[in-house]
Amino acid sequence: MNLSDINGKMSGELNIAAVSSAQYVVPYLLARFRAHYPDVHVRLKVCNRSQALERLSEQQDDLVIMAMVPEDDRLVVMPILDNELIAVVWPEHPLLSMPEPSLADFARHYVLMREPGSGVRNAFEQMAANQQVALSHCIELGTNEAIKGGVMAHLGVAVLPRLAVQLELEQGLLLSWVCLTSLSTVHGARYTPANGFLRRLLNSS
Amino acid sequence: MNLSDINGKMSGELNIAAVSSAQYVVPYLLARFRAHYPDVHVRLKVCNRSQALERLSEQQDDLVIMAMVPEDDRLVVMPILDNELIAVVWPEHPLLSMPEPSLADFARHYVLMREPGSGVRNAFEQMAANQQVALSHCIELGTNEAIKGGVMAHLGVAVLPRLAVQLELEQGLLLSWVCLTSLSTVHGARYTPANGFLRRLLNSS
Repeated sequence: MNLSDINGKMSGELNIAAVSSAQYVVPYLLARFRAHYPDVHVRLKVCNRSQALERLSEQQDDLVIMAMVPEDDRLVVMPILDNELIAVVWPEHPLLSMPEPSLADFARHYVLMREPGSGVRNAFEQMAANQQVALSHCIELGTNEAIKGGVMAHLGVAVLPRLAVQLELEQGLLLSWVCLTSLSTVHGARYTPANGFLRRLLNSS
Repeated sequence: MNLSDINGKMSGELNIAAVSSAQYVVPYLLARFRAHYPDVHVRLKVCNRSQALERLSEQQDDLVIMAMVPEDDRLVVMPILDNELIAVVWPEHPLLSMPEPSLADFARHYVLMREPGSGVRNAFEQMAANQQVALSHCIELGTNEAIKGGVMAHLGVAVLPRLAVQLELEQGLLLSWVCLTSLSTVHGARYTPANGFLRRLLNSS
């Protein structure tokens, strides 16, 4: 909140909020940032989409990294990365032996869902509503990690950000199957040293 | 909250809270529970230790799975699993070439810390205080996943629950080095169908 930039030497505090999907990516951005600005004290809050929007409206953070950014002229939005959502099932799940499983086929299984307020849940519910598919068999687990564990434990199937299941997909522990947004940085329009954060960062890559 | 058990057929809602360390384990317990009681609608809230304690005092959940349970005669506590905390560094980190690195050696590096209210942070700060080691170079990242990413991105070193880094350790992406609690189920003393939950569950293993 109180970052100062004197002769290119930045010091102070940088408060960032990230939605769950972004938490896998932000540490890599921070590592690059810290290499240039070791005197900045960084704090990362991880929350769901509705909490991120609330924090943004209350100006609690210098910068928010989120998907599905609301339309608001007072916000400066800069897309940084694709956030692909994928359907995830366990190896040998019956859906894998169907030639072209539809969303309706998927929804016939128990679906593990994030809590209300999650962007991934919103997006998935929207997609189901568009296709007039009812999501009637749901189990609510409050984080991507609990959902991953739930798929591995054969508790149900799920739609998750690809960023959340990278390692598991490589190890064949979960098998992806379908798709659908992008992660963006979001902050107020006023120029502050924190605004330059990602601009510098992305230029140094 | 409104679980009813009629002739051994359980139905209704089961609300569970789990601290971050437990989120990797609970889905496996739930999968076993659901196999016996498919008509129970399950909801899992994942939060940090201080939030779990607050929810417990407000009786928001039927059952809480947490470590470092407070002393309170009104609570029924049943240990279910060891929750080992381990120091985690990236492969080829200088600490690995020291014969017996101490906590003071560890704390000389940037340490990635969870937010205030986290049980792992509490435990680690307590250990440091006992050994009179100052934790002066800290970066705050709000989830175990962001911290894992931070270690992989060489942002810093960390103390994490072994349950959180299982897959990464197997893949050699992170290397463990030291150690330190147990996860327990906690609920009020009054008998409810939810109380029987883990007793039945643990008996069916």
